[in-house]
Amino acid sequence: MTLKTPEEYFESIKRKVNLYMFGEKVEEFWKHPIILPSINAVKKIYELAHVEEYKDLMTVKSHLTGETINRFTHIHQSTDDLIKKVQMQRLLGQKTACCFQRCVGFDGANAQYSVTYDMDKKYNTNYHERFKNYWVEVQKQDLMVDGAMTDPKGDRGKRPNQQSDPDLFLHKVDENDDGIVVRGAKIHQTGFLNSHRAIIMPTMAMRPGEEEYAVSFGVDITEKGITMVYGRQSCDTRKMEPDKMDIGNFKYGGQEIFVVFDDVFIPNDNIFMNGEIEFSGNLVNRFAGFHRQSYGGCKVGVGDVFIGAAALIAQYNGADKASHIKDKIVEMIHLNETLFSCGIACSSLGFQRDAGNYEMDMLLANVCKQNVTRFPYEIGRLGEDIAGGLICTLPSEADLNSNEIGPLLKKYLRTCDDINVEDRYKLLRFIENLTMGVSSPSYKTESMHGAGSPQAQRIMIGRQGNLEEKIKLVKSILDIE
Amino acid sequence: MTLKTPEEYFESIKRKVNLYMFGEKVEEFWKHPIILPSINAVKKIYELAHVEEYKDLMTVKSHLTGETINRFTHIHQSTDDLIKKVQMQRLLGQKTACCFQRCVGFDGANAQYSVTYDMDKKYNTNYHERFKNYWVEVQKQDLMVDGAMTDPKGDRGKRPNQQSDPDLFLHKVDENDDGIVVRGAKIHQTGFLNSHRAIIMPTMAMRPGEEEYAVSFGVDITEKGITMVYGRQSCDTRKMEPDKMDIGNFKYGGQEIFVVFDDVFIPNDNIFMNGEIEFSGNLVNRFAGFHRQSYGGCKVGVGDVFIGAAALIAQYNGADKASHIKDKIVEMIHLNETLFSCGIACSSLGFQRDAGNYEMDMLLANVCKQNVTRFPYEIGRLGEDIAGGLICTLPSEADLNSNEIGPLLKKYLRTCDDINVEDRYKLLRFIENLTMGVSSPSYKTESMHGAGSPQAQRIMIGRQGNLEEKIKLVKSILDIE
Amino acid sequence: MTLKTPEEYFESIKRKVNLYMFGEKVEEFWKHPIILPSINAVKKIYELAHVEEYKDLMTVKSHLTGETINRFTHIHQSTDDLIKKVQMQRLLGQKTACCFQRCVGFDGANAQYSVTYDMDKKYNTNYHERFKNYWVEVQKQDLMVDGAMTDPKGDRGKRPNQQSDPDLFLHKVDENDDGIVVRGAKIHQTGFLNSHRAIIMPTMAMRPGEEEYAVSFGVDITEKGITMVYGRQSCDTRKMEPDKMDIGNFKYGGQEIFVVFDDVFIPNDNIFMNGEIEFSGNLVNRFAGFHRQSYGGCKVGVGDVFIGAAALIAQYNGADKASHIKDKIVEMIHLNETLFSCGIACSSLGFQRDAGNYEMDMLLANVCKQNVTRFPYEIGRLGEDIAGGLICTLPSEADLNSNEIGPLLKKYLRTCDDINVEDRYKLLRFIENLTMGVSSPSYKTESMHGAGSPQAQRIMIGRQGNLEEKIKLVKSILDIE
Amino acid sequence: MTLKTPEEYFESIKRKVNLYMFGEKVEEFWKHPIILPSINAVKKIYELAHVEEYKDLMTVKSHLTGETINRFTHIHQSTDDLIKKVQMQRLLGQKTACCFQRCVGFDGANAQYSVTYDMDKKYNTNYHERFKNYWVEVQKQDLMVDGAMTDPKGDRGKRPNQQSDPDLFLHKVDENDDGIVVRGAKIHQTGFLNSHRAIIMPTMAMRPGEEEYAVSFGVDITEKGITMVYGRQSCDTRKMEPDKMDIGNFKYGGQEIFVVFDDVFIPNDNIFMNGEIEFSGNLVNRFAGFHRQSYGGCKVGVGDVFIGAAALIAQYNGADKASHIKDKIVEMIHLNETLFSCGIACSSLGFQRDAGNYEMDMLLANVCKQNVTRFPYEIGRLGEDIAGGLICTLPSEADLNSNEIGPLLKKYLRTCDDINVEDRYKLLRFIENLTMGVSSPSYKTESMHGAGSPQAQRIMIGRQGNLEEKIKLVKSILDIE
Repeated sequence: MTLKTPEEYFESIKRKVNLYMFGEKVEEFWKHPIILPSINAVKKIYELAHVEEYKDLMTVKSHLTGETINRFTHIHQSTDDLIKKVQMQRLLGQKTACCFQRCVGFDGANAQYSVTYDMDKKYNTNYHERFKNYWVEVQKQDLMVDGAMTDPKGDRGKRPNQQSDPDLFLHKVDENDDGIVVRGAKIHQTGFLNSHRAIIMPTMAMRPGEEEYAVSFGVDITEKGITMVYGRQSCDTRKMEPDKMDIGNFKYGGQEIFVVFDDVFIPNDNIFMNGEIEFSGNLVNRFAGFHRQSYGGCKVGVGDVFIGAAALIAQYNGADKASHIKDKIVEMIHLNETLFSCGIACSSLGFQRDAGNYEMDMLLANVCKQNVTRFPYEIGRLGEDIAGGLICTLPSEADLNSNEIGPLLKKYLRTCDDINVEDRYKLLRFIENLTMGVSSPSYKTESMHGAGSPQAQRIMIGRQGNLEEKIKLVKSILDIE
Repeated sequence: MTLKTPEEYFESIKRKVNLYMFGEKVEEFWKHPIILPSINAVKKIYELAHVEEYKDLMTVKSHLTGETINRFTHIHQSTDDLIKKVQMQRLLGQKTACCFQRCVGFDGANAQYSVTYDMDKKYNTNYHERFKNYWVEVQKQDLMVDGAMTDPKGDRGKRPNQQSDPDLFLHKVDENDDGIVVRGAKIHQTGFLNSHRAIIMPTMAMRPGEEEYAVSFGVDITEKGITMVYGRQSCDTRKMEPDKMDIGNFKYGGQEIFVVFDDVFIPNDNIFMNGEIEFSGNLVNRFAGFHRQSYGGCKVGVGDVFIGAAALIAQYNGADKASHIKDKIVEMIHLNETLFSCGIACSSLGFQRDAGNYEMDMLLANVCKQNVTRFPYEIGRLGEDIAGGLICTLPSEADLNSNEIGPLLKKYLRTCDDINVEDRYKLLRFIENLTMGVSSPSYKTESMHGAGSPQAQRIMIGRQGNLEEKIKLVKSILDIE
Repeated sequence: MTLKTPEEYFESIKRKVNLYMFGEKVEEFWKHPIILPSINAVKKIYELAHVEEYKDLMTVKSHLTGETINRFTHIHQSTDDLIKKVQMQRLLGQKTACCFQRCVGFDGANAQYSVTYDMDKKYNTNYHERFKNYWVEVQKQDLMVDGAMTDPKGDRGKRPNQQSDPDLFLHKVDENDDGIVVRGAKIHQTGFLNSHRAIIMPTMAMRPGEEEYAVSFGVDITEKGITMVYGRQSCDTRKMEPDKMDIGNFKYGGQEIFVVFDDVFIPNDNIFMNGEIEFSGNLVNRFAGFHRQSYGGCKVGVGDVFIGAAALIAQYNGADKASHIKDKIVEMIHLNETLFSCGIACSSLGFQRDAGNYEMDMLLANVCKQNVTRFPYEIGRLGEDIAGGLICTLPSEADLNSNEIGPLLKKYLRTCDDINVEDRYKLLRFIENLTMGVSSPSYKTESMHGAGSPQAQRIMIGRQGNLEEKIKLVKSILDIE
Repeated sequence: MTLKTPEEYFESIKRKVNLYMFGEKVEEFWKHPIILPSINAVKKIYELAHVEEYKDLMTVKSHLTGETINRFTHIHQSTDDLIKKVQMQRLLGQKTACCFQRCVGFDGANAQYSVTYDMDKKYNTNYHERFKNYWVEVQKQDLMVDGAMTDPKGDRGKRPNQQSDPDLFLHKVDENDDGIVVRGAKIHQTGFLNSHRAIIMPTMAMRPGEEEYAVSFGVDITEKGITMVYGRQSCDTRKMEPDKMDIGNFKYGGQEIFVVFDDVFIPNDNIFMNGEIEFSGNLVNRFAGFHRQSYGGCKVGVGDVFIGAAALIAQYNGADKASHIKDKIVEMIHLNETLFSCGIACSSLGFQRDAGNYEMDMLLANVCKQNVTRFPYEIGRLGEDIAGGLICTLPSEADLNSNEIGPLLKKYLRTCDDINVEDRYKLLRFIENLTMGVSSPSYKTESMHGAGSPQAQRIMIGRQGNLEEKIKLVKSILDIE
């Protein structure tokens, strides 16, 4: 059966990895309270694929194997597939209120699929076949795959080969008949740790002389030479405390991993690009395009939960009838649905590549992500407005439960008669969680920098905006030339 | 042949109408220089339907007659039809840089189609058949049809039947076996004058006791009892001056008509609603929904031309390489494409009504229009920034062409060596045209108030936002209840 | 007596000038209906100086002559003077709802005062004495003085001496013992025509080799060699029509003049800079600073009237109790008062120059103007929202007054019982006037480009923002270095 | 000597208080690592008062005692005092990058001063004398005083005496010849714990029947019946970890305290209002006004440090020359200085009360605070943009210092050659600190809700906006009425 259960997934990731946190090696990471919520988020993907209601979104028939697969391993075969991808991501955002990590590899694979095809066409290489074989295995085993792109990049004013340390961009340092050896690092890896495999891609378009940096390949997370360091995020240690309500979202959460590749060997079968610099930009742009599309789904889902929280806290406070509160909630919905519109539109106007797969509209995917770098911040600001200052004054859960001080707190945290103080407490912590707590990196910083920082989208919008055509339009109306 | 040529259309509207402008009756309105640009905009629709390149967008097979028809008379049969509608509107905006007036009746018909069906189902009336017959004729003759909704509304704090003058909302004042007699006014009628027919709809959801106001019907523009008064708009008389460049867009333009119905008789065959108050809201909302979708196409097209103008004037000024100019143009494109995304998304997620036709997604259509009430203003502001203060200092075309003063002006209006001063002059006037001149009502005020003012969309967003579902999402994550 | 009455002012400007409009020479410009409103705006300044209630704002004791003078000719002697300047400008904006044109020369003089002093100190020149003599005469005769800075600038990518036509920047073309001869043009001259004199300044900081462009001087408007061409603005010819209500603001208005200097001779006594390139930037920046401060007063006053119009039309429509209307008006006030705050703050934190006069805070003056390039647009947008679509559908005054059609229009333009339809008509036209009609250049384009385009302020904000100091602050807290 | 040294202040607060945190009683709170940074912020106030460079801002001569006092205990005697207050607050924001807590009592005292005077005038009470005596003692001992206003408020839809628990608004529960007994809670008390005393004020304007809620008084922090519970904020426990860099700002920080008054006795001498409901609104509004003014200083100072951090991290990343980075920093400065302008303007236009003290302009103070509820969020968003995703991926300081993993991290965190990796690490943590870490409540949530939530300011702006006057302006221009 190609669809793993969440339990099967969970069992499958229980293996030795080279992970550090707080300066120490982490053994059995799947038991670590800081990491567990991020595993739960991934498990949700596996779980929903088995739920009747969601099967149309969560599963699909593979064009490679004919089998029913989790959509997260699918190569899009139509614009309908592209739309369902975004809807599926919204669904998962709604169920987890955080980053669920599996789209990066998904987006990487869809980019890889057409780029390898195009490379083969030009160079008579066989990258496409290799990649298909690699990916059939992923589909068959329902594997979780990370996609890794961002290099540390050192001095931003310099090219890869101008850095004082050549490793600041991941590159090939050796090669033999069986494969290549790579060194460098990939940062901001949300899904690396909880994945079985990862697809590594160059961080930007490479130029002549930078061939060693134009490498792409698949690799197992447990491969020799890989070291992971766990990124420290807001309020992370609340997850290690005995009480759970203070976490806010005590079930699900994201994470970021700093991954170092210290002379890792990659066998030929797993190499999907090896020096073809003129295709490195295509791979980056297509991956980024797919991933910018993703944000029009996942962050919208998180926004849905956040808006629900804002509406509910207004009810709890007895303020939900105030016209300014209602208007702010309308604005939050409006902004959130604008993001969704962008996600849907770039999918709906997708097109077919020569390789046969479907790709989103590049301009609108960039427009989508650009809005994502703005609106979640404003939605968050409006939510803070509605929630009130208590998100910063609320004592700890230990205080709330203390025999000494708890009753006093409960007395003064009451609002409307039918409101349960503990529910109100949870809700305030949840709003804190998304605006400045455990999941604020998921909802805000990721929205800013994931799939490329705002300026990266602006460059693409400038390029894709077809200014020459627009100039022709005005010239035609004004009889100029 | 069902597709009129632009010339045939032009001939067909040369008939007596009851129109006033500047206090005087207008004879042969089709020769009036203030009106001609708006006729030209409509003609463009008829013209493009015959251009091979645009046939897929501009024409379609009627599901009623099986004939090829202009898409502007089509009843949408799929989400693909909905998407093409928006793309067609963008195209026409690009070709005219103003309002082309034909979508209102188009949107009214698509709303009427399903509402009459639903009414018949409930009341065993035969409105749907009547409407289909009426519309088949429209398709067969490729008629231009206006949609009319907005009543003067008098005191906004009062219901129709509370007004001191009951005619401030259009209503039925008499009825016999053959039909009804109506009195009232419909304002903001962009396309009424240049149309053959109009579909009149109630201005809002009516309540018990307001049955006489719940009327909808088709009517010929030339019908006895109809009086039109031409709205006066910014810089209108420039179109009557001998020189043309000062107009800005000297080919195309919009308009608004104030239409009074003074005891107009409507025969039964043309009546599509007659007192069914509980369907009046449906008709208003569905029409508004279709029309809010439209704005995600037409104003985007105008935006394309305006962005082209901004980019070109920057070149003319030798300023196009400045990073802040480039960034502002990227922002203009970004905002414009966000509008388009909303137009596409509400189309792509459309659904089928019981009547068989397709309707856009109501929430996203309202989100679309809400953005349209904001972004064209910001796009306009950025364009004014790029254009420079000259859009307000530029002397008249007569000065430019004067023997005495012209050479001096031309000397000082030169910029880069290869720039034609007259082209620069045209372009500056065009930017003035859209920001504060002849077409500013088309690009800005219509974006604000067309298809309902901002608050109308906010009410719908609040209703459609499904807050209860969002609250359930957060409760589920937090184990509340 | 140093305070001219408005009538005296009016008489004093009745003299031959070399002015063109619509390709023809204008004789007796003071009778021209397009120009009269702009003269009225200036007259208001002279009028209010005689009104007891406003004397504290409008008049002041000259530090040069000891006489009571109109504040518009004052050299600021304290921060209190700077504050009163802004308050006076707000007052005049409130009384005219347009540009009143006299601040440019006022601001130019205050810049000139300290720059001539600084030049003399360095070069032992006697510019300061010359300028004081010149200005004493202005104060004594209560003259209206324009300030002229903006050159056509040709190709923006090139310096003055790189242009194919050297005259695209105004420059000295000849010199003898008695004075200099200048050639070039100054555009965007709002107040030139209605002034007695003008102070001409360089358009930007000049560099070595550009000495001939670093000239500043006083000149009479009627001087031989000066040609004015009247800029054409939105709806200008409505002012020539028999009816007045369609104008919107039928009393006051702004204008822009294109001024050409064709070998104009300037005697030594009126020359205030002649080749001192290293002071040209100072003159530009100080003038721009004073003028950017001005915008924190004048446009706020216009905003006050516009907000009043929006509030009143809401009452007329019976919509003033709606919460969204009230909230929009609060937002308009908020934005308008933010502009005022910036105008007051840069005044309050002003400082004394070596010459003894007071200058506003440079950073905050630029912040002030930067906000002015944004908020009037948003205030205007909100006003259009509140006004409704009628600002674009309203028939002409001739229709309203027509025997045939007028009664019908009046019937349907009624709203609340106690509302006079004509008042409502006036008000709608007034809102049109400021958003896309006669005064939209005054309220919007001038806000954008007057005293320098947005990017000019951003450059100054970047320079004045003292980033090094801010970096020190964070280093100090983090013990860095 | 009236100016305590920071050491003296620190010694003076070492006394028993009834404080809880994490469910447990805190003994010797001045040693608690979570609390220490907030004490440090207060100490900074005492420290700077002794620094020559800052004496003009930090100290002033008391009009009550003639002694030199810390300005934080001053009753403003001029608009210059009001301006210096804002400048002093900016200074302290710059030195601490967080909330320094002493302005609340300062603002409360200035409101109390005039309100007690006005009450006495009406009722022949002697509150003003009492308050002066109380405050002379504060000045003489250079005491830190908190101001306490916000009640829990229970169900927002109900008045105080409609709540099911009457204690949800603090009220008088008993009274005898010597004083009164109060019960209730004051939440969001930033400065309570580190203060010697507090001034308690009603939370809103009270109405007839709510006299028991209209009480105001001074009280010692250590008074019997007072219980404090420490609010839990983002990343608080990082301050308890052995490493300090992960805190971000490891020196200074804010806090919020939940304070319960359980039958606290207040002697007559310390009572400043006792049932005078019609003055309760004045007290609330004047206090709120002073406090909204404060935000135009303190958050601007924090903004300065944050902007410095953004500029420095751009340098560290080698990205400071990129035009989009420079433009974003200009925007941050622009927004920050707009806030400052509002703070200065409402001070500069202050006026004298009958009591002799000076009060800020009420309208502009509310405009100031309203902007503060918006701009720090946008400044923060821009800072996150510039900082890059690393603020969420950065491993812990323990990782950085680990022998095993540290060298690898340091290798890959290098950027430009001359950059110290540890400095970069600190800076990234500092940006995290203000955007989602320890001080995000200080910079963002406090900016939103401190001195009243956004809607509170909008209500005041609506009231103070003088709409009637604005309507008169437009009527006058249009000859209406």
